Amino acid sequence: MTDFQQHIQLIREEVNRELANLPIPENPKYLYDPVRYSLQGVGKRFRPILVHLTGRALDANSDGLANLALAVELLHTFTLIHDDIMDNDDTRHGLPTLHKKWDESTAVLAGDAIFVLAQLKVTLIETHATEIMNYFNKITLEICEGQAWDKEFENDLTISEESYLKMIDCKTGALLGSCAALPAIMEGLNDTTVQSLDQFGRQLGRGFQLQDDLLELISSPEEMGKSLGSDLAEGKQTYPVILARTQFEKEWNELTSHFQSNLNGESLEAVKIFLNDSGIAQQTINKYESYFNEAQNALHIIPTEKRHDLESLINLIQKRTY
Amino acid sequence: MTDFQQHIQLIREEVNRELANLPIPENPKYLYDPVRYSLQGVGKRFRPILVHLTGRALDANSDGLANLALAVELLHTFTLIHDDIMDNDDTRHGLPTLHKKWDESTAVLAGDAIFVLAQLKVTLIETHATEIMNYFNKITLEICEGQAWDKEFENDLTISEESYLKMIDCKTGALLGSCAALPAIMEGLNDTTVQSLDQFGRQLGRGFQLQDDLLELISSPEEMGKSLGSDLAEGKQTYPVILARTQFEKEWNELTSHFQSNLNGESLEAVKIFLNDSGIAQQTINKYESYFNEAQNALHIIPTEKRHDLESLINLIQKRTY
Repeated sequence: MTDFQQHIQLIREEVNRELANLPIPENPKYLYDPVRYSLQGVGKRFRPILVHLTGRALDANSDGLANLALAVELLHTFTLIHDDIMDNDDTRHGLPTLHKKWDESTAVLAGDAIFVLAQLKVTLIETHATEIMNYFNKITLEICEGQAWDKEFENDLTISEESYLKMIDCKTGALLGSCAALPAIMEGLNDTTVQSLDQFGRQLGRGFQLQDDLLELISSPEEMGKSLGSDLAEGKQTYPVILARTQFEKEWNELTSHFQSNLNGESLEAVKIFLNDSGIAQQTINKYESYFNEAQNALHIIPTEKRHDLESLINLIQKRTY
Repeated sequence: MTDFQQHIQLIREEVNRELANLPIPENPKYLYDPVRYSLQGVGKRFRPILVHLTGRALDANSDGLANLALAVELLHTFTLIHDDIMDNDDTRHGLPTLHKKWDESTAVLAGDAIFVLAQLKVTLIETHATEIMNYFNKITLEICEGQAWDKEFENDLTISEESYLKMIDCKTGALLGSCAALPAIMEGLNDTTVQSLDQFGRQLGRGFQLQDDLLELISSPEEMGKSLGSDLAEGKQTYPVILARTQFEKEWNELTSHFQSNLNGESLEAVKIFLNDSGIAQQTINKYESYFNEAQNALHIIPTEKRHDLESLINLIQKRTY
């Protein structure tokens, strides 16, 4: 583990500790048992890590950063709980989703309460409170819009590259943008800085999502084979799938049409080979690398000597293989 | 219509106009069509009316009041949408509930977005913004707790009077308390005033709910007969039902046990007669009148000459017959 990896591991542990120490009441159990379950430490804590690293690059107030970091993680947790209901997902980080472990009503209410806990964390920030509140809630509305686009596109096998990129920008980019922008707002920095940092986070988020889309297809370990196969059979639209469908319609349909009945390692392997040979994998890599470059460029608003950790974070994401 | 009734009708129309004029985007339709549907003017607007009347008694800033009034109504709308999912209710104010007109996923997301719109209204308030945000969200958490108690008690036919009163205090009292307290917080008034006004709203809310419980049973028009009958058959616990069950267990069980099979006007009439003859109706009236009196007393924090409209509001509620 590099020094930088140790550094973010320490931040992750601190965030996990703070989530575990939130003063969640014992009763009513209908509400707080599932809330406690959702706050157990299993996430990557990517968003609070981004808040902390950006904030430290700006020499931001550390109490404020801790509150912001918790607020964005709680907001993220709330959106996952409600998205899992809407998408009818059974597991998250290897654990049963809340609406599977309990039921939908429980999950709706626990999600609501966690969103309120996020807002309460934001109210603890003492500088530029109104701007932060406003930004935090505008971003949340953008995330809701992203989920709505996702639901609209769910059964649409003709979604365009442009529509897909807009959707992931709302669903993933907006929150990462806020993780980088909110520390600057809290410190009262100028609009140019806030906007540049928002762009840094958004571009990082776009790159991260497209990279995720490709990794899902080409590096899926054995246990993921089944869900990947069913995703492909159902025509789940991700960036490389959209490229393959629009550029090689006939070949792609032939390749994926038999998945439901003939799922095996061999057919998944055939998809990987196709993505490489057709150039779709490389096109996807080029696209997400361009986002990572834009993220890198947006960082120029921060003095060179303060920029190191954020550049390391981009690098760490760029080089991940799962 | 009295002058006072005309006065609150004007406030109601203004609130409806502002709700209708909220700048709701056209797309994504998955999100904003149901949001628009939910903001159509069918509610009583009791909560924003309480904000306006209290605020005017305090000579509070009128732009701030308008934002607060919309925020509490949007918060209320959000809780109704999610409660309707959890309680599987089909209609609200005579219209299909959102999850019946669309589906549960749509309703979860539209509720979330309306809650965000409520928060965004709060961020427009320029004075004592952090305190207002904090109070607004603490109240929301209390409402979530109330709904959780309600779900815990749902199939519990042994719920005590005390537990029931705690539940309605969270579900109904908390928000009405905030409608009266928030204008005082916005104006920077002292804690004693804020707490007294919170008590005024809460006691009014408690009284209103118990009165509602009784009116449901004794003044139900023909079209309500069916749902009332099924509520009684399923043992839905409301204040007079709890009194009847605990004080006259045998008689009450006999009276309501045949509802599912023998629902007719005669059997509903028998319930009314029993509630009157047993004194349960009068006990309920005494209880809610004591809450209305406490609401009245809490108003003494406001100078006599400023108190008139709020006293008229208590009176109007006290005298309602449906």
